[in-house]
Order: sequence, then C-alpha cells, then structure tokens
Amino acid sequence: MQTDPEKRSLEQLLAIFGAEGVITDPDTLLRYSRDQVADADYAVIPAAVVRPTETRQVAELMRWANETGVPVTPRGGGSGLAGAAIPLPGGVVCSFEKMNRILDIDTENMMVVVEPGVITNDLDRALEPHGLFFAGYPMSEDICFIGGNVAENAGGGRAVKYGTTGTWVTGAEIVTPTGDLLRLGGKRLKDVTGYNLLHLMIGSEGTLGLFTELTIRVIPRPSVRGVALLAFRDHRSATTAVATFKRSPSLSAVEFIDGETARRANSGLPRKKQLAVPETAGAFLLVEFDGDDPATVERALTAAADQARRAWRDAGEPHPADTAATLAAHERTDPVIALGTDRTSGDRAWTLRKAVPWWVKRTAPGYHSVEDVVVPPSEIPALVEYAEHLRHKYQVPIAVFGHAGDGNFHINPMKPPELSPDEWPDLVDSLRHDLYHRVVELGGTISGEHGIGRKRVRYVPLALTREEIHAMTAIKRALDPGNILNAGVVFGLD
Amino acid sequence: MQTDPEKRSLEQLLAIFGAEGVITDPDTLLRYSRDQVADADYAVIPAAVVRPTETRQVAELMRWANETGVPVTPRGGGSGLAGAAIPLPGGVVCSFEKMNRILDIDTENMMVVVEPGVITNDLDRALEPHGLFFAGYPMSEDICFIGGNVAENAGGGRAVKYGTTGTWVTGAEIVTPTGDLLRLGGKRLKDVTGYNLLHLMIGSEGTLGLFTELTIRVIPRPSVRGVALLAFRDHRSATTAVATFKRSPSLSAVEFIDGETARRANSGLPRKKQLAVPETAGAFLLVEFDGDDPATVERALTAAADQARRAWRDAGEPHPADTAATLAAHERTDPVIALGTDRTSGDRAWTLRKAVPWWVKRTAPGYHSVEDVVVPPSEIPALVEYAEHLRHKYQVPIAVFGHAGDGNFHINPMKPPELSPDEWPDLVDSLRHDLYHRVVELGGTISGEHGIGRKRVRYVPLALTREEIHAMTAIKRALDPGNILNAGVVFGLD
Repeated sequence: MQTDPEKRSLEQLLAIFGAEGVITDPDTLLRYSRDQVADADYAVIPAAVVRPTETRQVAELMRWANETGVPVTPRGGGSGLAGAAIPLPGGVVCSFEKMNRILDIDTENMMVVVEPGVITNDLDRALEPHGLFFAGYPMSEDICFIGGNVAENAGGGRAVKYGTTGTWVTGAEIVTPTGDLLRLGGKRLKDVTGYNLLHLMIGSEGTLGLFTELTIRVIPRPSVRGVALLAFRDHRSATTAVATFKRSPSLSAVEFIDGETARRANSGLPRKKQLAVPETAGAFLLVEFDGDDPATVERALTAAADQARRAWRDAGEPHPADTAATLAAHERTDPVIALGTDRTSGDRAWTLRKAVPWWVKRTAPGYHSVEDVVVPPSEIPALVEYAEHLRHKYQVPIAVFGHAGDGNFHINPMKPPELSPDEWPDLVDSLRHDLYHRVVELGGTISGEHGIGRKRVRYVPLALTREEIHAMTAIKRALDPGNILNAGVVFGLD
Repeated sequence: MQTDPEKRSLEQLLAIFGAEGVITDPDTLLRYSRDQVADADYAVIPAAVVRPTETRQVAELMRWANETGVPVTPRGGGSGLAGAAIPLPGGVVCSFEKMNRILDIDTENMMVVVEPGVITNDLDRALEPHGLFFAGYPMSEDICFIGGNVAENAGGGRAVKYGTTGTWVTGAEIVTPTGDLLRLGGKRLKDVTGYNLLHLMIGSEGTLGLFTELTIRVIPRPSVRGVALLAFRDHRSATTAVATFKRSPSLSAVEFIDGETARRANSGLPRKKQLAVPETAGAFLLVEFDGDDPATVERALTAAADQARRAWRDAGEPHPADTAATLAAHERTDPVIALGTDRTSGDRAWTLRKAVPWWVKRTAPGYHSVEDVVVPPSEIPALVEYAEHLRHKYQVPIAVFGHAGDGNFHINPMKPPELSPDEWPDLVDSLRHDLYHRVVELGGTISGEHGIGRKRVRYVPLALTREEIHAMTAIKRALDPGNILNAGVVFGLD
C-alpha cells in the first residue's frame, strides 16, 4: 500500500514523463533490478523506472529527487559488471533506452552527436558507409549503450591501440545531480577553458551527472585488418611475447586466454564455429593489426606467427610441427590456429575470445566473479602466475583472459560444483582481498574498465589512500550535496 | 621594513627549504614576476620564491600557506602565455626548477617517470637512444617544463596526430592545496578505480594541485618523418585543404601561417635560413607525416604537394609554374617550397613556423596579444575570415597562425606604431570580446592550449554558463577551501 507522499511523488513523475515514461509494473521493474554482476543478492527492485525522451525531463527528475529525497540511479544497456546501475531500495531508475537517436554524423569534422541510449555497435554500423570508425570497442558492443560506456569509461579489445571510450569523447550535455544543465566541450579537438569537468564525469559511474547527449570523435576506418590466434606453450611464453607485439604501431588488439579456458569455451561453441586448438597449449593470444597498407599488416601478422613458433623452440621443446612424435600427439601441427586479413579468420578468432565470458557465466551461474584488475604491462607474467597461486590456495577453477596489451586481466574464480553456495561469498571475498593486495603491490589497481559500482566499494581503500578518497568524496559532495545521484556507488553511502 | 609575522613566515620558509631554496633578493625576484604574456602590467613581484628539491617540502609549503594565509603560485619554465604563473602581491612562487630529474626510463612498459622541472625537449632527447618518443610537443619545447605542460595541458604542433600533453600522462604525484599527498594512476594503461582526479588536475593551471612527479607514456619513435611547406593562393584554399590532409592516418602536423606573416617572419630569419616564399601566396601550410614505412610517408607528401598545385589551378588561376608571365612575376615557380623526408627539409620548414611567434613578439614588444581560440575544424575558413574582418574593423595588423588540424588558431593583434600605447588596452579588450563571441558562435571556445591564466579570467563567462562556472568553482572550493593555491587564476578571486 502506498503512503500519501509516495502517491504524490508518483503523480509528479507521471507529470514529468507521461504514462508511457513511467514503469511501476512489478514484473517489468524486476528487469531493472540488476546488471551483469553474477551474485543475485545485489538485485534491488526500484520503486519506479522512468524513461526520458528529452533532456528537460532528466533535469526535472533531478530537481524532483532533491525535493523528495528519492535516490536516482541512471541505467544504460544493463551490461555493467560492477553493479553501478543497481538502484537503492525505494529509488528510481532513469533508463536511457528511449533516448537512442544518432543526431548527427558530421563527416567533415569526423564527429558524431548521439543520445546516450544508442547501442554501441549500431553507432559503428552507421559510420561504416561513411568510411568512418568509432574506436571505442567494449566486448559487449551488441547490447551496451554508448552512454553507459562513457559513464564507465569502458575499455575493450582495441584499447591497446585506440584507448578507452573516454579518449574519443569531445563534448557532452550533462544534467547535474541538482538538475542543472552543463554543455561541456563540443566539436572541438582542444579545450582548456576552465576545468576538465568532462573527463571527471567520464568514468564517474553515474554518480556526478547524467549524460543526455554525447559528441564523439571518430576516425577514418582502417581498410585492412589482420588477425592471428596463436597458441603458446605456457602463460609465460605468451605474456612475454606481448611486449614484442606492442612495438608494432599497427597492433590493434592482443588478447590473452588461458589454455584450459580457451579449450572449454571452444568446446561450448556450435561445432562449425569450433577451432582446432591444441591440447598442450598453456595459453593463447589473439593478435590483431590494422591499418591502410595491406603489406604492413601482412608483415606484422607473419612476424607474430613466427614469434609464436619461435617461442615453442625457445622453450627447448620442438613446436608441434617439428617432430613426428608431437605430430601424433596433437590434433594440430602448428601453433598458428587462425591467421589472415580476411573477415573469416578474424571472426573465427574473435568468436572464441568473445565466447569466454559467456562460458564462465554458464559454467557457474550466479557463483562466479568477473574481476577486472590491471597491472603495468611488465607485471603481466607475475599477475598470471598469481592467478595460478590463487587456484591452488582456494581450490577453485579460475578462468584468466583479457586485454594483455593494457595489462588489464579478467580473472574469474568460479564456484566448483562440490562447494556449498553458502561458502562462496566468504571464499570470493577472501580471494579478492588477496588478488587486490597483489595487484596494488605490482603497481596496478582493482579495476581497469568495469568500475567500482556497488560490487567493489568495500575494496576501494585497498587501492586508494584516505587522502585520495577524501579528495574524491569532497568533489562528490560539492556537486551532489544531497547525495541523491547513484549514492552508494563507488564510495559507499556515508 | 618587514612586520613581525612576515619575519616569522620567512623563517619558517627557510626552515623548510634551507637558504639555498629561498629567494628574496629583489633583482632575482623580478625574474619570477611574469611569464610570456606581453602586457607589462600583469607583472607582480612575489614576496619570495621557493625552490623545492623534494615533495615533502611542497607539502610543508602548502600547510604553511594555509596557516599563514600567504598565497602560493606554482611555476614551471615561465613560458606560459596566459599569466597562470604570475603570483599575487605578497605571495610566494613555488618554482620547480630544481626538481628536474628523469627518474626512470622504463623501456619495457614504454613509460617514464620524471620530476616536473624537466625541460620537455630534454626528455625527448633522453628517449631517442631507446627508440622512444614523447608525443607531447609544445612549440616552446626548448624552454618549457614538463610539469607546466601538464598543468596547462599544452598542445603543440603534433597534437593533430598525438593529442595534447594530457593524453600521455598515466600517473602523477600531486600535493593538494591543503598539503595532502595524492598518488593518482601509475604505470598502468587503464584505471577506473575512483574518479578521474588525474585528468581534472591536468590543465587546471596550478589551481587544484602541484605536480611533484609524473608518469608519462611514450611510444616507439617513428622512423620516417616527411615535411612539406606549401603555398596557397588564399586563406580559403589553404584551410579547405586541411580536411583532405586529415584523412591520412600518418598526418602528424598541419600548421597554418597567413601569407604576410610568413613573409615577414621569413625576412627576419638569418639569410641562410630564409626560404623562397612566393609573394602572391595568401597562406602557407606546413604539413608533416610520420610513420615507419618510407613509401607511405613519401606517398602522403606527394599527394599533399599535388593538392597544393591543384588548389592554384582550381582557383581558376594558373599556379606560378604554369605561365611565363606568372613565372616572371614570382621568385618561385612552384607552391611547394620545402619538401622531403630528410632532416634539412623538415628543419627548414619548422624554422619558419617557429619563427612566427618570435617575430610577433619583436614587432610589437609589450603591445600584442597571443590569442588561442579553437573552433570545430569545419569552421576554420570562417574563423580566418573573421580575423580578416577584425583587421579592418580595428585597423591593426593581425598575425594568424596555428594548429590548423585541431582548429586551434593563434590570432595575434599587434599595436601599429601610430597607435598610442594608452589606446591599446581598450582596443584589444574590445577586439577580444568580438573574437570570443564569434568563436563561441562557431561552436568553439576561447582557449585551446594556453589556458585562462589571469589574462582571460574576465572573458570566461563568454564561454561558460553560470551553471558550468558554478560546478567548477564548487570543485575548487572543495579541494582548496582556503583559496590559497594560485587564487585568481582561471576563475578570479571571489
């Protein structure tokens, strides 16, 4: 039963958004109760979901929220992996699903203006006929919203060459937590007029403002792309190869998958998409080069393949192709599994890479944790070794994959079937403490692209000092004195 | 005569910095009274200059400042063009000239760790033997400090390909206005743990924190660089060519100089450095391409030269080489003045480009203004036309040059000899109002790389709304409640 103030509040929301723009039906609300974080106990059903179609409504929403004290949580595609889009009890979710127009494709300035609810891949598809390319590239590109990518400063497969989403944002219209409208930057490539609020907002996980329009720089679409999926004997030979690949300016991706995980994810693919991945490989690297000169890309691909073959020889073992004995022992005779500048080779390799997180999800539904640590590139071998140590210490399977070029690894502990679900939360908490301590020791931090959200709030003091947290929360208070916008995300509720 | 509190304050500074680290000698203080802003009335002689050699001293300085109420202004190489390093009366300048060590060249991670007082070009020189390259590149690279570049988010000649200084900063040690120590980021390529304070600090012109150590990403040094200096018939044919050049991914610079300015700056060079610049050209573009494939760079250079020749033909006029009549009328017969991938061609072209600001300085010493407006690239022709309009309206010479690839132009009105110095301040203020209104109308802003400093404080409301200024000053108050660090820079004193 609704109290009188609740009823009045709902009437006010209806006045702002219209009946079409307000959801209170319990079944539908359920869909807005969580993102892609595995643990079901993060789910919170909001009191209502509002779906703005224009900026004015978002500003009115925030003024309403400050008057009523009802907390607001912005939501993009719901593809987040840290719980930043999970509302507070009694709160309202502001979903940008209806603000999904591409407003302007400006080929002369090589910039686009979009609403936040555009699906990331839709933007890139719209650019293709113009020979242009949006270099932001989260792995969830088919479902995520560009607004969410910006709010989280999403990374992805090609960040090693092109940087994270924030790199490409030159302007934004933003509604502040108190309902003011800011228009920061624009179609300009440089701007030092006042503070860089734009990049403070980017990656602030919807706690400092709501993006209602984005201006994004795009670039000439590379005409050639070459991909190789390479097998390595062990983690170390794969991770040490990364530095060599990075010396090539055309390198556009270098993704790591540990051997066991790659094989299992591969087996889970439809048969015709499966690849002949060798049983003895301890790790795989997907490398991609792009550019406009086919010869340069071909050369880089060949060099990468040679490097993979050499790594087997350097390990003192003949690589699978070298002896009849090994030949017999392996399905394949070459560490080079897919290679080429044609679309098929590329798709085959990326299909395996993209299958990995889904395989993790299916293997331990509700009981796995997608970690997102980042270390200096030189510490990648140490990090992957530490994942091995955690496997032994906690006796749980851990899938290791991620963006090796950036030192950003997804380390995914999964509950083994024999472990009771009750024991899982404590185990994973303890494992996270170990992992986060280690990455900080290695000069890294606890999240590279997924964010803190609600999931990692309690671990922030492992990565940031009291003074650093103090400076950041002072800014939150300055911009959101009522703590009304996505409170509890990044820094907790007090 | 010093008051007692002043004497006590000085003693405290001596205790922190030692006698070596404190300057109170009036002649020496004079050198810290200004930067490169032309107007002499911006000069303010500080009460003292301190020269820290370690971070601890900087933190103690800020605690001392908050206790005594004495304002502090950080200073790099003094090459600023907006007065951000000019102290307040009675204030202390914190000069980083003694914190000038390159602490770490990490070739594996392709990162360097430096103190803020390193001269920018010294860093690049130190990287060259390692095959590495610092892509930040202000035109004052021989005198500016890397710390100042970061504090101002300096741009420069190669920002069109490599972005501004801030692009390359992955970590910093920062002393806050209240004397706390923050260590933001590090040797990592991605980081979404907490807010992006690092990029808020970058470009904040020393008002939000003092950089005491910087971690900077560097890249493999391009092995080929090709430069062409091209003459165009008029502004419009030059500025419209820019968009074509930008479609080449190897374009690393495209610099504009108006015809008259180029000829005069050229005449001011030592004779053996002078170039044969045609009298009839209305504008010049310096274009540079870099990369690792000589053929690609050569191809791009040839295409650029062809484009320049075509632009003369398209204008319905034979280009200088086409008729005997024009041949006679010109010293040169080709719009391509310097072209090649050799060092000499590059140096010749850049020497002219770099001579331009010095020529402006010499031509109207104390009575010119280096403007730094930025517009969307598509509006470059409109901006250059507007400069022409201002020339006529105010009857002053205006040198126009800058970073055409970024839409960032230096528009430099100069006092004509016949105008009384007393009339100059009002004229230039009025001209700035016109110019800034126009760039905002074109979707641009009032500073692209030099900053607001003290020089442009009064014009900020032309570019930012009340709400935007409110959000920015709320952050300043949150981080510097005593308004003690570089107060009056960017946002004025209240």
